[in-house]
Amino acid sequence: MQKIPVAILGATGVVGQKLIELLISHPWFEIKKLAASERSVGKSFIEAIENPINFDLPQNLANMKVSSCDFEDKIPLAFSALDSKVATEIESNFLGKGTHVISNAKNFRMQSDVPLLIPGVNSEHLPLIESQKSLGKIINNPNCAVAGLALALKPIHKMFGLKKVIVTTMQALSGAGNKGPSAYAALNNILPHIHGEEEKVEQEPKKILGQLLNNQILPLNCKISAQCNRVPVLNGHFMSVSVELEKPATQSSILFAFDAFNKKASKLPSSPQNALTYFENLNMPQPKIHQNIDKGMSVSIGKLRRCSCLDFKFNLLLNNLVLGAAGGALLNAEALLNRYPELFMSPEVAINY
Amino acid sequence: MQKIPVAILGATGVVGQKLIELLISHPWFEIKKLAASERSVGKSFIEAIENPINFDLPQNLANMKVSSCDFEDKIPLAFSALDSKVATEIESNFLGKGTHVISNAKNFRMQSDVPLLIPGVNSEHLPLIESQKSLGKIINNPNCAVAGLALALKPIHKMFGLKKVIVTTMQALSGAGNKGPSAYAALNNILPHIHGEEEKVEQEPKKILGQLLNNQILPLNCKISAQCNRVPVLNGHFMSVSVELEKPATQSSILFAFDAFNKKASKLPSSPQNALTYFENLNMPQPKIHQNIDKGMSVSIGKLRRCSCLDFKFNLLLNNLVLGAAGGALLNAEALLNRYPELFMSPEVAINY
Amino acid sequence: MQKIPVAILGATGVVGQKLIELLISHPWFEIKKLAASERSVGKSFIEAIENPINFDLPQNLANMKVSSCDFEDKIPLAFSALDSKVATEIESNFLGKGTHVISNAKNFRMQSDVPLLIPGVNSEHLPLIESQKSLGKIINNPNCAVAGLALALKPIHKMFGLKKVIVTTMQALSGAGNKGPSAYAALNNILPHIHGEEEKVEQEPKKILGQLLNNQILPLNCKISAQCNRVPVLNGHFMSVSVELEKPATQSSILFAFDAFNKKASKLPSSPQNALTYFENLNMPQPKIHQNIDKGMSVSIGKLRRCSCLDFKFNLLLNNLVLGAAGGALLNAEALLNRYPELFMSPEVAINY
Amino acid sequence: MQKIPVAILGATGVVGQKLIELLISHPWFEIKKLAASERSVGKSFIEAIENPINFDLPQNLANMKVSSCDFEDKIPLAFSALDSKVATEIESNFLGKGTHVISNAKNFRMQSDVPLLIPGVNSEHLPLIESQKSLGKIINNPNCAVAGLALALKPIHKMFGLKKVIVTTMQALSGAGNKGPSAYAALNNILPHIHGEEEKVEQEPKKILGQLLNNQILPLNCKISAQCNRVPVLNGHFMSVSVELEKPATQSSILFAFDAFNKKASKLPSSPQNALTYFENLNMPQPKIHQNIDKGMSVSIGKLRRCSCLDFKFNLLLNNLVLGAAGGALLNAEALLNRYPELFMSPEVAINY
Repeated sequence: MQKIPVAILGATGVVGQKLIELLISHPWFEIKKLAASERSVGKSFIEAIENPINFDLPQNLANMKVSSCDFEDKIPLAFSALDSKVATEIESNFLGKGTHVISNAKNFRMQSDVPLLIPGVNSEHLPLIESQKSLGKIINNPNCAVAGLALALKPIHKMFGLKKVIVTTMQALSGAGNKGPSAYAALNNILPHIHGEEEKVEQEPKKILGQLLNNQILPLNCKISAQCNRVPVLNGHFMSVSVELEKPATQSSILFAFDAFNKKASKLPSSPQNALTYFENLNMPQPKIHQNIDKGMSVSIGKLRRCSCLDFKFNLLLNNLVLGAAGGALLNAEALLNRYPELFMSPEVAINY
Repeated sequence: MQKIPVAILGATGVVGQKLIELLISHPWFEIKKLAASERSVGKSFIEAIENPINFDLPQNLANMKVSSCDFEDKIPLAFSALDSKVATEIESNFLGKGTHVISNAKNFRMQSDVPLLIPGVNSEHLPLIESQKSLGKIINNPNCAVAGLALALKPIHKMFGLKKVIVTTMQALSGAGNKGPSAYAALNNILPHIHGEEEKVEQEPKKILGQLLNNQILPLNCKISAQCNRVPVLNGHFMSVSVELEKPATQSSILFAFDAFNKKASKLPSSPQNALTYFENLNMPQPKIHQNIDKGMSVSIGKLRRCSCLDFKFNLLLNNLVLGAAGGALLNAEALLNRYPELFMSPEVAINY
Repeated sequence: MQKIPVAILGATGVVGQKLIELLISHPWFEIKKLAASERSVGKSFIEAIENPINFDLPQNLANMKVSSCDFEDKIPLAFSALDSKVATEIESNFLGKGTHVISNAKNFRMQSDVPLLIPGVNSEHLPLIESQKSLGKIINNPNCAVAGLALALKPIHKMFGLKKVIVTTMQALSGAGNKGPSAYAALNNILPHIHGEEEKVEQEPKKILGQLLNNQILPLNCKISAQCNRVPVLNGHFMSVSVELEKPATQSSILFAFDAFNKKASKLPSSPQNALTYFENLNMPQPKIHQNIDKGMSVSIGKLRRCSCLDFKFNLLLNNLVLGAAGGALLNAEALLNRYPELFMSPEVAINY
Repeated sequence: MQKIPVAILGATGVVGQKLIELLISHPWFEIKKLAASERSVGKSFIEAIENPINFDLPQNLANMKVSSCDFEDKIPLAFSALDSKVATEIESNFLGKGTHVISNAKNFRMQSDVPLLIPGVNSEHLPLIESQKSLGKIINNPNCAVAGLALALKPIHKMFGLKKVIVTTMQALSGAGNKGPSAYAALNNILPHIHGEEEKVEQEPKKILGQLLNNQILPLNCKISAQCNRVPVLNGHFMSVSVELEKPATQSSILFAFDAFNKKASKLPSSPQNALTYFENLNMPQPKIHQNIDKGMSVSIGKLRRCSCLDFKFNLLLNNLVLGAAGGALLNAEALLNRYPELFMSPEVAINY
């Protein structure tokens, strides 16, 4: 198969760079355009990155000239790691031109005809794109903390029914990126508020775990309460979760549900071997040590035990830059191409490759 | 009034050093003995401290020779910042000799005739010491995280009745002290387990908020579920708390309860001006900035709002070294002397001063 | 004596806040104006601070309305903690109106008629202000790293003559303040370049240690080579220094020079008890532990020993926010008032108090 | 070629684990034994590691039983990552049994018949092993900081002659490992002393850069002065270096020397593509970003410029765990096998494979 040419919008940021890293030797996709804000346009990519996350860039990407986000060339697929301030306009523009957009931005996540997709969790929501009016189709991946939470909750919900979820997050600095809090503000400290984050963590899982009925998502009827904090950790969102269930459960029956979920997971090129990795050792998982399990695409879970207030509680760690952002977006692109190959063969998008 | 001579047991550790700092110009107490493990005995105090927290030590204390913990001199009052491995034997020994012991160690905390005391929260438990059989009397202050939690819960419980408490802690490194996790293990990381901590956070508040009936504590009938984590912050335990209440409440009625609690707080030399400090700013409190409010003796609270699973949720910060350890112990000593001055006038303990 | 009313220009930044903290109970000065950029004007000071360093602000200061930096009221003395981008214009404006300016900004530091002053090191340069043409007089304190370095070098130079100085700095995040590097860029990292810093560290000490001849400073004839790095430490600049001397020296003769320097230090209200604090313990000084020695106004020195390439080497730590910025500026104001009290009695400046 | 079976002594520590990671798919060597202290013996390797650095261990290694360091089986090659307290006895024991030892411990580094080897820098010292009396031969890699420093100095010395080197190190926590300083001691701090480190940095490069004459090393006649500090960075030793040269040099002639050195580097399986990586960008290299360049085997250099005291100065970063320890040891083993294949074919060592 010839590779699909793709563009990365917002290529110089932390998520954009991670997307590039993951795409370097991808079997299905090939980077053709790196687009960013005016400050970077015209520079080689290596010059344009102010805060690099990775330096084993192939020469062709290091030297690729950065385009502006309104470039003229037709491209079948664009990954958007854009700031939410500009994402609506730029993504809409690409959709209008027939480019399919895989977006990490929050802007369209809760729109009724946009799948908020985690392959393996709610792949059945993907056909929502058929209702989209635009020439190009858009899929969103969820908020970085939600990506891990929804994966862990899915098998629990499926087998036992979720009634309540209380979650306290300890989120890493990479989630805010290079425009995040100053080192003087964040080192040796906890920042107890992340603007808009608790709302996302409380709403997005309900859409993801919701039911597709008549081309509409019926959100999960479950209460979620989130308290989101920023901690001085570079990468890896960690959270403490308590759940109340509809049916009786035991520690071993929940672990069985995790196992069963792992076994039937989708097998796309970027899928982890195990969607969930459970640790018997009480001292694990830890962000520094376990963020890259299964190339950063597996959710690590530990200390599953009874909760005296709700029913069960556990810890959870995910690689927010990979599973929670770039890797999750890539998996969504793979799911789209896997299920709707014809979208990439239409004359409109295929014109250049 | 002549000052009461006191000993500090475990003087070279983090809590011991903080006790010394707080006692330097105390109106009621005067340090006469610094005792520590064999490694330190015979050295001057300044030489014995391997990891100092404070260097404006008065010359007399810097040069004071460190004693072993079985010194012969009679002393009316001893502050114990001992490791729990040795605390039972050493504290019992002092009690047998008529020394009153204010202990930060966990060993006797849950013993039925020992007050687990936070003046202003459960001062009415202090008379438990009258049932103690030993010549000297012992009072314990709670676990460092519990010290802050119990203070915040008290006014809520009093006005609205506590049914459930779910708490996730982000605890500072000073809680583990210089024998705590290595920097290579803890920097840029979260450690998801602190041995024995969750049990303490779930049990101790029930004793503290319990009722004294017939010289016994009837523990509070309330469910508490704790998830305790260590974060790379030097000092200041932070936690996210959710509570379910017996009676209806509003944000403003809870804030009113906090205010009322502040107004009737006990006024001992080490009491804070306000036991609770509430922040309207959603970005506060923060460990780096607010740990020393009211000299580290006030609990900082923020983001009080409705919880969609239980009833209300909020953040809480306390200075674990001060309020949670050395300062809490000192306040207990003040409460003891204030209520039972005669204990310090008996010939047995008064012999040397 | 009636207190001198003072303004703080750039009051909401890290240095501005520290100045306020140091002035709260100052015997000679009293804050009358807090001025900052347009973003803050009209707010109460407590609302205007985005990243507070201190929260035990007296009510009157917490509620003081922030002025713009072109306020009309006459004020005899202004402390400038302004950004260098705006300092030239604003400081000049105040000087023209007869306000004396104590500036922490770099803009006028190397101007020939401006004393680059560290009382106790080069108090004899203060009369340079007599050549200044403006109605108000201006004194600058040096770059934060230089403040500590020059203090340590002074007694060495005086007794042994400096020929060469090689210094590698490990500078704290507070030196860059809240607009400094992002936490994602700086945590768990070293930033090997601080724009313009090496030039300042190489030039400013030569002016400070220079000779006043015919109302001009003859810079010290000494070679200084600096390598400046930013490390993930909140406060406290640390540096490794090697020196080559004109005359033979021994470790003990240099320590003697330090002692002699301490003994004849000036005694202004903000002067430390000892300008230099030497540690015999090889593991000291450390930024976390020793930054506040002598209220942050003493330079801590350790590991003085022979250097096989130059003559001697040692470590040095200073509190960059206090001695290196706010405290150094305050000491300069005290030196000015102490030596030129008449400047504060002239009708022009005294009009309002 | 059949792979050589190897043992790792001190397998559970930070360096031991890194050795395992590097050996997992090595073309020449295959792990047959993991040996560690008594605490670990008999456990599976995965259970024995208290502080894991890596979790994608192959199942066979994860489950391999940990041996004690006096196991009976004959093994041709052992990598020693032993603590210096036990290294002399254990390494000697293996040498006596005919096992070749590649040691990261300091114990035999300065012994006259032991090559202190960095392939590409002093490969000509390897024949020193021919003078060794033991049945097995031993090669040492240098101190972690020295590994990077010697590589950078080699081309400078070769082309311009080194007279003086002044170096200030900012060393990472992984250098001390899990038994290193506590997080409470090291976070937000600089530790100004590392026991024995300055001596190693001052002595070892002279041996490495020395001349082999009559089967003896004539140490380099050059003055080296080191100041070694520990900073809160997990991995990646950074240092500021100044050098005085015998012959005139320019920035571009030194960069030319670096390039020439890169071109003639040895090409063993673990050799980096470039031994030295120079950065034009003044803000680079940085430990967080560049520690893994060329799989952690390249030394990163930046800010090469004139020094006003000596001749030139620059920054240097190396991956202390890879190039400075495990990777350096592995390269030495490759150099040994490459040059003396017969050592691995003798009946004594070859018996088991």
